[in-house]
Amino acid sequence: MITKPTLFIDKTKCKENIQRMCSKAKTHQLELRPHFKSHQSLEIGRWFKDFGVNKITVSSLAMADYFSSEWEDITVAFPTNILEIETINDLAGRINLNLIVEAEDTLAFLSENLTSTLGVFIKVDIGYHRTGVAPENLALINQLLSQIDASDKIQFKGFLGHAGHTYKCRTNEGILEVHQKSLEIMARLKNAYGERYPGLIISVGDTPSCSVAENFEGVDEIRPGNFVFYDLAQNKIGSNDISQIAVAMACPVVAIHKDRLEIVVYGGGVHFSKDRLEGEKEGTVFGRVVEQSERGWGDIIPGMYVKSLSQEHGIISVPGSMIDQYKIGDCLMVLPVHICMTANLMKSYHTFDNEVISRL
Amino acid sequence: MITKPTLFIDKTKCKENIQRMCSKAKTHQLELRPHFKSHQSLEIGRWFKDFGVNKITVSSLAMADYFSSEWEDITVAFPTNILEIETINDLAGRINLNLIVEAEDTLAFLSENLTSTLGVFIKVDIGYHRTGVAPENLALINQLLSQIDASDKIQFKGFLGHAGHTYKCRTNEGILEVHQKSLEIMARLKNAYGERYPGLIISVGDTPSCSVAENFEGVDEIRPGNFVFYDLAQNKIGSNDISQIAVAMACPVVAIHKDRLEIVVYGGGVHFSKDRLEGEKEGTVFGRVVEQSERGWGDIIPGMYVKSLSQEHGIISVPGSMIDQYKIGDCLMVLPVHICMTANLMKSYHTFDNEVISRL
Repeated sequence: MITKPTLFIDKTKCKENIQRMCSKAKTHQLELRPHFKSHQSLEIGRWFKDFGVNKITVSSLAMADYFSSEWEDITVAFPTNILEIETINDLAGRINLNLIVEAEDTLAFLSENLTSTLGVFIKVDIGYHRTGVAPENLALINQLLSQIDASDKIQFKGFLGHAGHTYKCRTNEGILEVHQKSLEIMARLKNAYGERYPGLIISVGDTPSCSVAENFEGVDEIRPGNFVFYDLAQNKIGSNDISQIAVAMACPVVAIHKDRLEIVVYGGGVHFSKDRLEGEKEGTVFGRVVEQSERGWGDIIPGMYVKSLSQEHGIISVPGSMIDQYKIGDCLMVLPVHICMTANLMKSYHTFDNEVISRL
Repeated sequence: MITKPTLFIDKTKCKENIQRMCSKAKTHQLELRPHFKSHQSLEIGRWFKDFGVNKITVSSLAMADYFSSEWEDITVAFPTNILEIETINDLAGRINLNLIVEAEDTLAFLSENLTSTLGVFIKVDIGYHRTGVAPENLALINQLLSQIDASDKIQFKGFLGHAGHTYKCRTNEGILEVHQKSLEIMARLKNAYGERYPGLIISVGDTPSCSVAENFEGVDEIRPGNFVFYDLAQNKIGSNDISQIAVAMACPVVAIHKDRLEIVVYGGGVHFSKDRLEGEKEGTVFGRVVEQSERGWGDIIPGMYVKSLSQEHGIISVPGSMIDQYKIGDCLMVLPVHICMTANLMKSYHTFDNEVISRL
């Protein structure tokens, strides 16, 4: 019995998403090191193990700590936060921990303060310009490598990039263009350093690129995360079909305004987050309502979408032909715009078999 | 020792904010029923008790349940969610619970299913158009009142409105214009029903109106919430000075990009939420960096602001004259745009006396 905003997971769709990405990685002989920041759940992590995945990516040391009870090889894909050195040393003593580095100061600190060995990837800015070393800055890369080589606690693993600028693409061609540039940048680094570091790993792979591309030449490892669920934002980018989205929020109807064709649901910014799609045909959209079925949900209902969110309220725009179908106490199923943020706010996933899947 | 994004509270500023609003309510002979969705903390709630507050507002039954251990009179200012009838009955049996209603179906359900008595306010749409009964729809108001009168479990408390459209104002004059219209709408309802219900309460009072207005004619109760902390969005509206903002996030510096005058901090959308200020002189702003002092913080540093947020990353734009002052491992203090959403994401408040104040 649903009584408040509840995040549902369609296990079949979710496992199909996992299987599809695992197959793709296998086809292209890539190591799949999925990013677990999207689901943050030990239980969902186990579904990946069933497909042979044994290495993961996370975005914080807190997440690495949570997953370390069941995973022995974890990359924290966030610039190393030296203030958390105690957690770093604790984790490095228990699992194969990889950090990402891009600054001399960070490596100098690690060299002095590590008590266990760990791996590092040098973070390369492959065009997103959020963070990372410019790939043409070989002087800095050489400096970082000399610091790494001089430490008996730090092992060089390779170069890691994140093409987050694919999230601004709206066509497969756009995604492939970004992806091709990532491959070229990484190929130059592999050429430059492959001989000196024979086992070096080239790690790339955001969800849009990994969903769309079929050429991964020179890549050793991919780290997509969002694909486990997908969402409306990924659909807009072109990563997935609506039918592949594996989570939806059930939201109780608390008020109906027939005069302006709106329904108020219990389900706001503290449940969905306020990530939005801009420039939709309806304007700004914070979620879309889907048809309900007994054990899941179906297509998007045309013209039925979340037009605004406040802390607890969601305002749903409803077609005139449909407004009479709903009554207070019903629940609407809503596809979120950005599932990583939504899942972070909700503390569990509910299945249609009345299971509750917990997370960090 | 700060190691990760940490939400700090300046207790002095916070208590001054509480005192100022309590004084204003007293001056205007208003009942202050503060909205506790902004802080969601029993401990901070106790600071209000010190100023004589004994009634509160919350935005969910879960919050009402949390505060019911210390508060005996709680209004849930969200359209009644009938699916939570068990919680409603539990609370109504323990405390003076007030719900808000605006639909016949909701009242019909309550009449049939309540096991204890409670109060209801009729929610009136005073111009925000999020939800509520249109104030000119006396037929519906009369219908709701007849349902209320027919129930021995439901007591009519009065009319409640929320002028959320003040959040779109950018001047005091704009806020006062909205507030004046609220007063006029509510005066008409008090005139129409005051004789039939002599004790009826007129309840209004968003933070901008309560911060700026000096005329509350006809109003019995105000329910501002955000003023306990204030934030950049309220400052932009004109509710508060920057010096009155009582919370700031400490964010570790993890990377520095001197070439593009940017610092990457640990502090992203999962800490701040992604509420933003649009149309600032710098463009879109997700937070502003303030000067640090030993036991607090000072003014905004001109030109130093959060230009973008992803899940864990915050990108800070830094003036060229200042970039050399910072190093990896420092912490920046950042004022949030919308503290209600930020506080909801962070699970505690830290004081400069090393206290940790918990919340729901």
